[in-house]
Amino acid sequence: MFKEGCGVIGIWGNSDASRLAYFGLYALQHRGQEGCGIVTTSSNKLHIVKGKGLVSDVFCDDKIFDRLPGSVAIGHNRYSTTGEKGYRNVQPILIRFRGGEIACVHNGNLVNSASLRKYLTDTGSVLRGDSDTELIMHLIARSGKPTVPEMLEDALSKLQGAYSIIFITPDYLIAARDPHGFRPLELGKLGHGYIIASETCAFDIVEAEYIREIKPGEILVIDKDGKINSHFPLEKRREAFCIFELIYFSRPDSKIFDVNVDKVRRDLGRRLAVESPVDADIVISVPDSSNSAALGYAQETGIPFEIGFIRNHYIGRTFIKPGQLERDIDAKIKYNPVKGVIKKKRVVIVDDSIVRGTTISKLVRMIKSAGAKEVHLRISSPPIRFPCFYGVDTPTKEELIASSKSPDEICKLTGADSLKYLSLEGMLSLSTLPEHSWCTACFDGKYPVL
Amino acid sequence: MFKEGCGVIGIWGNSDASRLAYFGLYALQHRGQEGCGIVTTSSNKLHIVKGKGLVSDVFCDDKIFDRLPGSVAIGHNRYSTTGEKGYRNVQPILIRFRGGEIACVHNGNLVNSASLRKYLTDTGSVLRGDSDTELIMHLIARSGKPTVPEMLEDALSKLQGAYSIIFITPDYLIAARDPHGFRPLELGKLGHGYIIASETCAFDIVEAEYIREIKPGEILVIDKDGKINSHFPLEKRREAFCIFELIYFSRPDSKIFDVNVDKVRRDLGRRLAVESPVDADIVISVPDSSNSAALGYAQETGIPFEIGFIRNHYIGRTFIKPGQLERDIDAKIKYNPVKGVIKKKRVVIVDDSIVRGTTISKLVRMIKSAGAKEVHLRISSPPIRFPCFYGVDTPTKEELIASSKSPDEICKLTGADSLKYLSLEGMLSLSTLPEHSWCTACFDGKYPVL
Amino acid sequence: MFKEGCGVIGIWGNSDASRLAYFGLYALQHRGQEGCGIVTTSSNKLHIVKGKGLVSDVFCDDKIFDRLPGSVAIGHNRYSTTGEKGYRNVQPILIRFRGGEIACVHNGNLVNSASLRKYLTDTGSVLRGDSDTELIMHLIARSGKPTVPEMLEDALSKLQGAYSIIFITPDYLIAARDPHGFRPLELGKLGHGYIIASETCAFDIVEAEYIREIKPGEILVIDKDGKINSHFPLEKRREAFCIFELIYFSRPDSKIFDVNVDKVRRDLGRRLAVESPVDADIVISVPDSSNSAALGYAQETGIPFEIGFIRNHYIGRTFIKPGQLERDIDAKIKYNPVKGVIKKKRVVIVDDSIVRGTTISKLVRMIKSAGAKEVHLRISSPPIRFPCFYGVDTPTKEELIASSKSPDEICKLTGADSLKYLSLEGMLSLSTLPEHSWCTACFDGKYPVL
Amino acid sequence: MFKEGCGVIGIWGNSDASRLAYFGLYALQHRGQEGCGIVTTSSNKLHIVKGKGLVSDVFCDDKIFDRLPGSVAIGHNRYSTTGEKGYRNVQPILIRFRGGEIACVHNGNLVNSASLRKYLTDTGSVLRGDSDTELIMHLIARSGKPTVPEMLEDALSKLQGAYSIIFITPDYLIAARDPHGFRPLELGKLGHGYIIASETCAFDIVEAEYIREIKPGEILVIDKDGKINSHFPLEKRREAFCIFELIYFSRPDSKIFDVNVDKVRRDLGRRLAVESPVDADIVISVPDSSNSAALGYAQETGIPFEIGFIRNHYIGRTFIKPGQLERDIDAKIKYNPVKGVIKKKRVVIVDDSIVRGTTISKLVRMIKSAGAKEVHLRISSPPIRFPCFYGVDTPTKEELIASSKSPDEICKLTGADSLKYLSLEGMLSLSTLPEHSWCTACFDGKYPVL
Repeated sequence: MFKEGCGVIGIWGNSDASRLAYFGLYALQHRGQEGCGIVTTSSNKLHIVKGKGLVSDVFCDDKIFDRLPGSVAIGHNRYSTTGEKGYRNVQPILIRFRGGEIACVHNGNLVNSASLRKYLTDTGSVLRGDSDTELIMHLIARSGKPTVPEMLEDALSKLQGAYSIIFITPDYLIAARDPHGFRPLELGKLGHGYIIASETCAFDIVEAEYIREIKPGEILVIDKDGKINSHFPLEKRREAFCIFELIYFSRPDSKIFDVNVDKVRRDLGRRLAVESPVDADIVISVPDSSNSAALGYAQETGIPFEIGFIRNHYIGRTFIKPGQLERDIDAKIKYNPVKGVIKKKRVVIVDDSIVRGTTISKLVRMIKSAGAKEVHLRISSPPIRFPCFYGVDTPTKEELIASSKSPDEICKLTGADSLKYLSLEGMLSLSTLPEHSWCTACFDGKYPVL
Repeated sequence: MFKEGCGVIGIWGNSDASRLAYFGLYALQHRGQEGCGIVTTSSNKLHIVKGKGLVSDVFCDDKIFDRLPGSVAIGHNRYSTTGEKGYRNVQPILIRFRGGEIACVHNGNLVNSASLRKYLTDTGSVLRGDSDTELIMHLIARSGKPTVPEMLEDALSKLQGAYSIIFITPDYLIAARDPHGFRPLELGKLGHGYIIASETCAFDIVEAEYIREIKPGEILVIDKDGKINSHFPLEKRREAFCIFELIYFSRPDSKIFDVNVDKVRRDLGRRLAVESPVDADIVISVPDSSNSAALGYAQETGIPFEIGFIRNHYIGRTFIKPGQLERDIDAKIKYNPVKGVIKKKRVVIVDDSIVRGTTISKLVRMIKSAGAKEVHLRISSPPIRFPCFYGVDTPTKEELIASSKSPDEICKLTGADSLKYLSLEGMLSLSTLPEHSWCTACFDGKYPVL
Repeated sequence: MFKEGCGVIGIWGNSDASRLAYFGLYALQHRGQEGCGIVTTSSNKLHIVKGKGLVSDVFCDDKIFDRLPGSVAIGHNRYSTTGEKGYRNVQPILIRFRGGEIACVHNGNLVNSASLRKYLTDTGSVLRGDSDTELIMHLIARSGKPTVPEMLEDALSKLQGAYSIIFITPDYLIAARDPHGFRPLELGKLGHGYIIASETCAFDIVEAEYIREIKPGEILVIDKDGKINSHFPLEKRREAFCIFELIYFSRPDSKIFDVNVDKVRRDLGRRLAVESPVDADIVISVPDSSNSAALGYAQETGIPFEIGFIRNHYIGRTFIKPGQLERDIDAKIKYNPVKGVIKKKRVVIVDDSIVRGTTISKLVRMIKSAGAKEVHLRISSPPIRFPCFYGVDTPTKEELIASSKSPDEICKLTGADSLKYLSLEGMLSLSTLPEHSWCTACFDGKYPVL
Repeated sequence: MFKEGCGVIGIWGNSDASRLAYFGLYALQHRGQEGCGIVTTSSNKLHIVKGKGLVSDVFCDDKIFDRLPGSVAIGHNRYSTTGEKGYRNVQPILIRFRGGEIACVHNGNLVNSASLRKYLTDTGSVLRGDSDTELIMHLIARSGKPTVPEMLEDALSKLQGAYSIIFITPDYLIAARDPHGFRPLELGKLGHGYIIASETCAFDIVEAEYIREIKPGEILVIDKDGKINSHFPLEKRREAFCIFELIYFSRPDSKIFDVNVDKVRRDLGRRLAVESPVDADIVISVPDSSNSAALGYAQETGIPFEIGFIRNHYIGRTFIKPGQLERDIDAKIKYNPVKGVIKKKRVVIVDDSIVRGTTISKLVRMIKSAGAKEVHLRISSPPIRFPCFYGVDTPTKEELIASSKSPDEICKLTGADSLKYLSLEGMLSLSTLPEHSWCTACFDGKYPVL
């Protein structure tokens, strides 16, 4: 139920770079639907096409790729923009500076952007939009270092917070991940070239092979000859991979943080079953995001997995506002319970998380109206009690229902017969989870950097 | 993998009739995505809004409903149009004739349209488009009968083939279903009024209650005072309900032909398991249409159901043509296998049908590439060997792979390790199937009317 | 200040027929700006492209002409449409009937459309829009005659009123003009082929040569071999050429009714000068429509012609409503007086006509504000006191200021120092006017047919 | 035949500031048709709406003005943009800097932009587009001065070239004109507030009163209380008003450089008649830009002024390329000769200037085809032999026909019977011309600053 912050992609060494970036953006569309763009380089110049809307809206004609020649490309899916201002923030952002032209795509959120912004404007910079990405570009332009890779290093060393970022210049493709490693960034082999993306589902669509993850604090430079240079010039920080990428954001068919997302979600469901079993007739998911966890819960408990909700995928933009005409119409337009499956059954709904609690309440009402005898909510992650400052679009603390209410109180509000969350310890003890240090700030408020 | 012919809806007796029709069209969007429209009546006039595209494209602003006043409405989703000609065929079709104004929405396909067309033009009628619906309107206009309901009866008596149809005039809402009963048409209670729709999923979204199905050959007239008059003036024919509505077209959360669609699909999967079991590690579906059948197959065989494909729902219109750049890119953009689930497994793919055989071949290749040891195809319906003349958009006989190839030959072409179809007898012997006579022409060529 | 009813064009015998029709429509754009379209024929089929908006909006890409192959074409500019209904009335209108396909474009207005409409619906025809053109098509479809030209004759014989019309079928291009000859229709030579258009300005743009005018009651058939057959099968009526075409509608560079429009307008101005001279310093026009008349007035009186108003041609559609913010803003956005020319001068404004009197009042105010000592209005036609029923979009009698007010009263309302109209006798006595009988119904109420 | 560089407007002290700016932009539309925008200020913030296209395209709905609250506004019409890059250059440009928010609109062209660009990027600035306006904004941001007006002064002191510019901040409306005074900038009284615009035709539409011109080198600051402060801090330069503004760019109903444009043009025509009379029957103009000069020529010589060309104002964007299908089609689509006026006449065509010579050649051919016995070209300005560096969109020297050919050679190329230009001395000796020093670089190559 979150909106995530952006998907990024980079292609090196393929004469169809822009088209491959486009396919990759298709695969990463779930990370952002409000805008997208691609920059390529050829003949010592950068070329850009970007716009508001889905990948299929912005790249609506094969002829567009004539405007994006070259064998190196970067691309971006953005999650939220409005009005005139919005367009300025659609990525990639391309600038001219003393080093020539450079463009970048960025996933994450800085925590020191206010002080960076003050520093830059106080010393005479001109800011157009209000994005972190623009700040990074200015820091690069301000660097006195002699080469582009060094200017980048210099700029990145001033950042605090989350960034998985890819730069393109006529000479280089450069990927970097912040020293905490909040957001994923994956490296693959694409023919004789390379691909870099937020998730490996972008590799599959173009038949690229997974190599490894870009490491926290790593800056990976691919030069004109395809020579790769990896270095770690940034100050070391405590590793803090966003566990919410595994719980909700990423596609289950992706591999990130050295693990298959689907596998983790399955185990989250299993562990939830161990911690909070229930006597029931069927297990259903809220499609599609909690499918894997629900399946794990069903497998562990032996309660049959059923398809309890049909999701309408033809929704698009709608002007329907909650409360209009029919109660819960916004949820009903998206989900409809399968009555024949639900009727007279004791139903377990497995969902991945509860944010404001409004949608899950509507779903419980719908399942009850469809004739369920009991409804038991099982959430495959701990209560979200704190906002995220590293790129997840959570609401304020006040709006997070678990920040002020206990699971029992939430259960009562939703109208469910029982509600159990997965425990933080249970989640972190999963054997499937690779050996990383995780950011769990949204659950426990322990922010790695502020 | 078929494209179906249209969804229809009618609303009687609600001051928000147009908005309710709009919600219903949302729920019926799977039956047609190329155009839609609504007609209402008030002050003795008809009002129309229609256009190309999805419901969310055509009805993109709440203000549109100001142009659709009145407490009676009909609506339509259309599945296929192109160019100028296309617009003329978008429904509802509204005409002026001696009886005043009338509009209608139609699902189905006539088999005597060529002879009707000849008759009408030979005797001086002017035809604009090439739709069956237009022919029906002309027959009404030509009728010498004194009242609108009688003129309708007169016109319908000249039709041969499939039609589930709803008419609106300033005085009446009239629903009719052909004497064979090819396409579904359901009746519900909506507050103090009525709702009529192709499927009951349109009832759920507006919290209407199911009453019963409109019967084959029934003409149901609702007059200005809400008095319902049902009669059966048309010549009786052998009942021939389209079994493909249950296998593929309708939403699993709908009830049509007196049965829950999901329940039938589950049993098709179970029966398929009984007929053609296989020694394997996992059962997967081709989401979302074969989910229920795959679940049934898994439950019956005891082989675990897994989510093997992730479907990308953000596709929209794309200019990508098969064969461009990457092999199978059209299928890959839509589906991606979950490698961690597939790898080294013996996989059963349950799909609902095979038409041309091209997509399933791509899916088999993708699953094999993802590391499956074996791939077994199980199809929850018999081989489709004959085109449909009653409103299903099947290709010609030549393009139907099963019309010229045996299951073994098809298996070889797809690259699967085995391929089994459900038998026709097995399908028809399902205890879940209600007591109807079915149209199985696409499987056995026994056309109820030609 | 009128909006005219439509421009029509036909091209025969040029492989670039659709592009030539397009250029012709450009030249005829002043006759209608709300919609346009072209139909061509090739391979025994008709092809159509039409839409709302200007020629440059609808035909916005050269590729469109790939959809309009063939060496015969007709085209149309329409003056007024709104909403869904509007699109149905955009011409050409293309139908299928017993004779195959036929399309037509029509300029004019029938007076017996209500009775034709009743006859057609009473006998079973289905009407979609509310245009005269559709009625004509139905009459053709109803004709029992054996050939298309005979069916046309049969249909046209039932019409009363004004029509200059061009039909296209795979076999024929047929032009016809009503027996009164209300609207112009001109014939030209285009290479080895032909061109037919509302005005000869459409000939100039494609370098066609003027041959002659299609005569009142003439039906001109061009068959596949380019053989021309002219005949006059319709009942003779009194000739009634619309004199307003010369006064206002047509472009001054056109020749219609056997005379150069500019020449007539010049003489209307001269005659006005003879009838109503005035002691003044300068003569100005309301650009561009009264330029010629003003020049004539100036030449005859010897008072210098000046450019007193600058007209803004970049207006496009605007949402500005009279009275908003600034008094007369709607007129001011279109015209601005040239102060240096006006100041302290006694000014004669020559305009071609006064309809409601609102715009001319604003212009008088603007000229006075610009410092004119006196303002004298001279109108190069008699007072318009009666509405037109033959295709000119005049308002109702109540709104025609001259229907209820004398010239002196109108003069007072506008704030001018004097106001004189050209006399009806003066107008008709012009030696420049060719030997025709004219329709002057808008001036004297003598309607040739009702 | 030139495309000019932009129109600017500023409004101070009217609660409908954005709507008034909009009307002003309508009046200035001739100075730029490719993009436009408005910025207002209220509640200590700036608000912006801008886009590609005409004023009527971008401001297509009255509701837009809800997004532009406040009683102070600036606006801009831009003349040329394409693609993504284009949008970035549409004005106003709004930035955030140490002084808060500021936006500006700019007419003119700097000559030291390359060195400014190098200086800025070398010292760490990030440039997005390639406009002069952006450079000015950066110089402001870089200034170390304590107040916004001082920062502006500091920035402007670094500029070389042409600029008439208006800035808006939450506290100030500031107008400035370069010390040479290349482009006009006029000051008016608007109720109790002020208006500043490129031309006074923008005053007339909102009923503002002319006060005076902003002087070369003047910086005029209007603060929150409406206090006006004018000062001249910039280094003095030789005055160099662009005489081409009078000859061609500005609207004839405007007053700029202390003179009525129409008056100057009339006198240019008269002087041309004195210098180069000819024995002919009629004088015609190329509408609308040379109307005044042609009238002057006719009045001086006594040869009758006639309307020889009808100009089609419905052209819009067209994809027609010269040479397509019909010779001279691009010119023919825009102009058509009035045959009845031209035939067998000795014609003088008065035009304001010749750039490449292509259009005038087509016009001569058209007039000859229309039957003229002789065609004499009279140009109301000297030969344009040098490109403009101060904001006029002239082509390169190579493309300027007069840079390499004598009037006689040009005459031959156009096919005219004679061709005479106004002499430079004749032009400058006009008694109508106010006492200014003029920029005549395009005629004599004497560039005031390089």
